[in-house]
Amino acid sequence: MRAAVFEGPRSIEVTDRPDPVVGAPTDAVVRIVLGCVCGSDLWYYRGESPHDLGPIGHEFIGVVDQVGNEAHGIAEGDLVVAPFTYSDGTCAHCRAGVTSQCVAGGSFGNHGIDGGQGEAVRVPLAGSTLVRVPGSGHSDDTMRSLLALSDVMCTGHHAAVSAGVRSGTVVAVVGDGAVGLCAVVAARRLGAERIIALSRNPARQALARSFGATDILSERGEEAAKVVLEMTDGVGVDAALECVGTGQSLGTAMAIARPGSVVGAIGAPHDIDVPIMDAVVYRNVGLRGGVAPARVYIPELLDDVLEGRIDPGRVFDFETDLEGVAEAYAAMDERRAIKSLVRVGTL
Amino acid sequence: MRAAVFEGPRSIEVTDRPDPVVGAPTDAVVRIVLGCVCGSDLWYYRGESPHDLGPIGHEFIGVVDQVGNEAHGIAEGDLVVAPFTYSDGTCAHCRAGVTSQCVAGGSFGNHGIDGGQGEAVRVPLAGSTLVRVPGSGHSDDTMRSLLALSDVMCTGHHAAVSAGVRSGTVVAVVGDGAVGLCAVVAARRLGAERIIALSRNPARQALARSFGATDILSERGEEAAKVVLEMTDGVGVDAALECVGTGQSLGTAMAIARPGSVVGAIGAPHDIDVPIMDAVVYRNVGLRGGVAPARVYIPELLDDVLEGRIDPGRVFDFETDLEGVAEAYAAMDERRAIKSLVRVGTL
Repeated sequence: MRAAVFEGPRSIEVTDRPDPVVGAPTDAVVRIVLGCVCGSDLWYYRGESPHDLGPIGHEFIGVVDQVGNEAHGIAEGDLVVAPFTYSDGTCAHCRAGVTSQCVAGGSFGNHGIDGGQGEAVRVPLAGSTLVRVPGSGHSDDTMRSLLALSDVMCTGHHAAVSAGVRSGTVVAVVGDGAVGLCAVVAARRLGAERIIALSRNPARQALARSFGATDILSERGEEAAKVVLEMTDGVGVDAALECVGTGQSLGTAMAIARPGSVVGAIGAPHDIDVPIMDAVVYRNVGLRGGVAPARVYIPELLDDVLEGRIDPGRVFDFETDLEGVAEAYAAMDERRAIKSLVRVGTL
Repeated sequence: MRAAVFEGPRSIEVTDRPDPVVGAPTDAVVRIVLGCVCGSDLWYYRGESPHDLGPIGHEFIGVVDQVGNEAHGIAEGDLVVAPFTYSDGTCAHCRAGVTSQCVAGGSFGNHGIDGGQGEAVRVPLAGSTLVRVPGSGHSDDTMRSLLALSDVMCTGHHAAVSAGVRSGTVVAVVGDGAVGLCAVVAARRLGAERIIALSRNPARQALARSFGATDILSERGEEAAKVVLEMTDGVGVDAALECVGTGQSLGTAMAIARPGSVVGAIGAPHDIDVPIMDAVVYRNVGLRGGVAPARVYIPELLDDVLEGRIDPGRVFDFETDLEGVAEAYAAMDERRAIKSLVRVGTL
């Protein structure tokens, strides 16, 4: 098969790789239809985080091609969404709803596991990992939103859930990347009354608005915090969603969070130099989030995608085929694209 | 009146100060019966945190002596517990249950407000701050436990509440100071199934056990984390309560917290150099706590003290009178005492 591999910073190549086959009886092989590039892929692309040389990409939807005899609940020909981490569904962490910390789990495109930017993937623990999509003949728009469930929509949802967003909540979303935009979708879906999105990019501002943001701020850092506090009578927001992972974004999120609230933090941390415990202790602002348990969230979000109530696939504003995957990275790296779709196969 | 004042690191003096009087109509004056020294007082005592020169001490119970005409719900002669922060009960933060962040609030023994280590205190916002103790003729043991409600018991309770302790929870308490010991009381009261207390001091170990700890560990740091993980089949505890405030204690608490759980953190932060966001994001461990909203907690805990269901006053294992307050500090500083009681007046 053809698959993208990481060969070092800014070096993404598409090469021939062995066709995946079922190894363990709990495996399945999925033929990929759509893959994409994640904001977190940019960290190693830019040389800011380490990554094994080899297969990459952790988001995909596809069609089941082979099924091990202990991979229950899925069958050849099923259209499936893969959460970006695989999990056994039975360990203590899975049972507690944190499938992203499964003791037998891992993520696609890491440590020798096939990536989602390739023609096919051996999926470990397939029966407890893959989520079957009912129906057939889904539109391209629906397919794009199904792909978003693989990571980005679940991650935005996790930020909102971690921060306790519910009916009537006043939310601020720090970060206008694909996850931040999906956090707007999630906040709206959970009933937020007001959603303040921080963005200075006109295209992203427009998408945030159409996803449900009620207010858009182009300020950043301390200036953004000042404006949000003014907008909330000095109180701060009920739920600040940190969707970047830098010290500046975390500092902003903690500064605008009202005392007693919890910052929903899902950005992979880089250069965090803010006095977190001062905010936790002296301002009573909590922190919760992390790697989203996508496998837990996909079923409930899937219904909303299939019924057309949410359309997170609109975050994909650039597309290419598998051979063009390097350009998919470059477009995001240069902020020409919010998120790049990679068309790999057909249904 | 006589009152303790801070004159610089390791210099606590008892001097003559003006008798407090009602200034604003919302004030009351309370004649102190019992005061005490807080673990957080040791930070400035040791020169590790700044503190205004002047009155000190933020924990006291006493008898109402004067009442402003807008200080409702209290009357001359009432025995009252003072939460360590005063609050108006009406601002957005108070209404959200975070009285410790009241926009009109502050703490006793700071910024010119009378301290709890003195004969009397002008209490701002007295009607919404002081909690009247019903009944009369309370035993000395009860009085000591009532004093503990002023801060230390509420703070331990806040750690437990912030971490979501409830029936069946497996808890670990990091820190065997008075707050850590009260966190054991709180965890037991909230129904924890197992309470692992980290302590290497025999007297504190014994008190932790009598408060409800089911397991005592004398290990610290990485070794403690290793043992707790072994005790919990590698999963970690459902609720880790951080009751110290150092990098080591926070690191231990985050390392033993199971993914998806929230560390209840109430220790005033000092020298925090642990990668907090790595734990939040990559281990899905949250953080919540801060300055306890004691005013919210006192009423519910008061019933348990008066009915004899909890006896947090047992953390006081040293006592002196007001003139001996410097020795009360020294005893705690040298770890000869868990917590020092200061007998100031009579009922």
